Amino acid sequence: MSEDLYTVREAMLYSQRIAQLSKALWKAAEKDWQAWIKPYDLNINEHHVLWIASNLEGASISDIAKFGVMHVSTAFNFSKNLEERGLLAFSKRNDDKRNTYVELTEKGKSLLVELTENYNQSKHSVLEGSLPLKEMYGKFPELLDLMAIIRNIYGDDFMDIFEGSLRKIE
Amino acid sequence: MSEDLYTVREAMLYSQRIAQLSKALWKAAEKDWQAWIKPYDLNINEHHVLWIASNLEGASISDIAKFGVMHVSTAFNFSKNLEERGLLAFSKRNDDKRNTYVELTEKGKSLLVELTENYNQSKHSVLEGSLPLKEMYGKFPELLDLMAIIRNIYGDDFMDIFEGSLRKIE
Repeated sequence: MSEDLYTVREAMLYSQRIAQLSKALWKAAEKDWQAWIKPYDLNINEHHVLWIASNLEGASISDIAKFGVMHVSTAFNFSKNLEERGLLAFSKRNDDKRNTYVELTEKGKSLLVELTENYNQSKHSVLEGSLPLKEMYGKFPELLDLMAIIRNIYGDDFMDIFEGSLRKIE
Repeated sequence: MSEDLYTVREAMLYSQRIAQLSKALWKAAEKDWQAWIKPYDLNINEHHVLWIASNLEGASISDIAKFGVMHVSTAFNFSKNLEERGLLAFSKRNDDKRNTYVELTEKGKSLLVELTENYNQSKHSVLEGSLPLKEMYGKFPELLDLMAIIRNIYGDDFMDIFEGSLRKIE
């Protein structure tokens, strides 16, 4: 891409705008997420690992790291904690001895069902902040520009699996 | 807002979608930001404090905390570091003895100018990921739905100052 497309000042302001908006949104989403899972003695990374393992059937630790936007060591350590609590099981595959795969146990699956059932017990500020848009559009905002930016940064693969796993649940 | 507007499952999927998208975007923006300021021995919070102090003339520590989406103690501690490095000056106001106000020193202002001049020296993945949209739209994406959600969560005040400070720089 040529730099003629934009001035440095314009680029810097746009970057700072996105940095500040994404920080504000993520901090609100993080707080909601923490409040939701608090009664279950899970942290966000642990719940994220369970969520990805549930949505990606037969996820490897590196899939978890990639789709959870975390370091491989973080993904591994939190998966290990979950395995010790009996929520996740590790396995190797005959055709791929190098990677460790994870799968939810029955106990892990029940925990996710329980979390869904108790979703309404905590405050969700991002959801509440989106309801006026839902009333206006008749559906939750799709944020297609945002998705396009993330697709360009993380690749088609990231978004395809992201979309696929959400569709699977729906 | 009535819960009739959505099912719990729909709400949960939407929340998780936003949580994952905002995490992915913020992690990319954070990495870009870190790479940009790395040569200046600043962390993101310190640069954010300088940026807010520069854009909000006469910012108090609580303004910094609010607009930087950080704890008041975090805003104070990083401001203190910056004061010790001669980049920021603290003051009290005669009409408001309870709050501490911060202002950039000349050294702090020069540092921000230098940072702007060297913006192009590091990789900016969010910017690069947005360029195809800029080419298509003729301008950087405005992400108005995202801004509306953040306005609903953080209040008009937050967005007005956010917009005002960006306009000031432009």
